[in-house]
Amino acid sequence: MADTDERYFEDYPVGATFEYGPVLMDEPAIVEFARRYDPQPIHTDPQWARSGPFGGLIASGWHTIAVTMRLLVDHYLPVNASLGSPGVDEVRWLRPVRPGDELSARVTVVEARPSQSKPDRGLLRSRIEVRTADGPVVMSLIAVNLIRRRSQD
Amino acid sequence: MADTDERYFEDYPVGATFEYGPVLMDEPAIVEFARRYDPQPIHTDPQWARSGPFGGLIASGWHTIAVTMRLLVDHYLPVNASLGSPGVDEVRWLRPVRPGDELSARVTVVEARPSQSKPDRGLLRSRIEVRTADGPVVMSLIAVNLIRRRSQD
Repeated sequence: MADTDERYFEDYPVGATFEYGPVLMDEPAIVEFARRYDPQPIHTDPQWARSGPFGGLIASGWHTIAVTMRLLVDHYLPVNASLGSPGVDEVRWLRPVRPGDELSARVTVVEARPSQSKPDRGLLRSRIEVRTADGPVVMSLIAVNLIRRRSQD
Repeated sequence: MADTDERYFEDYPVGATFEYGPVLMDEPAIVEFARRYDPQPIHTDPQWARSGPFGGLIASGWHTIAVTMRLLVDHYLPVNASLGSPGVDEVRWLRPVRPGDELSARVTVVEARPSQSKPDRGLLRSRIEVRTADGPVVMSLIAVNLIRRRSQD
């Protein structure tokens, strides 16, 4: 596949899959993210969390998404052909992410539809599944991106 | 409404609305978040962004969500009765968020359903709409939270 700075809509065929990671989620990173953006004690206070509903500290689901987004920007999305995202669907936090977990993302192109109204671009729909090293999916979502097509000249 | 550390499932009646904010999105904060989690040049490089698809730097959509989550944790979600979230639906980034924008969140309780299988909790569904000071909705999503019910003794 082309480097991300040479990638266009045509580089995302339906059915293609990619694997990125792993990324270590350690306790300092979990606590730091949560203190700023999601300061619930289950994410920020290991002692409180031990008697909480998950029996220990867990990462904010938004933190899991943020490190996944970093993987997508570094390895998957086009640098120059990206035209933004109208949204994401079906974010599912299926299992807790705990300190020490190493997360990997599997990306599958599920739809790649040229725009009818704007022939310079297409809509890309990608299924993202994030797993820990020992296997189970901890998070999934459907990302939607608008991507510039290669010049038709 | 009770303080967040005294709040339970019963404190979220369907139809209730709440307003939180504003939060200023300035350029240093936009760039700092994006450098770590979403380093696309449209979020990190003001000069690149000027000739980009939005005619200037815009915030990562995940940054907009993160500051919204902070408002929800500080003002809306229960501290002790929160049992986590299975996910979110229909995240929509409707308009770009630019440096200087002040974001406010309107929260509407759209569903509050006691669990059939676990009588100690209920499922809360909240519609979140984030606006800039001059009015238009820039982002919306549906949050889902599991919340402990008050003791039935």
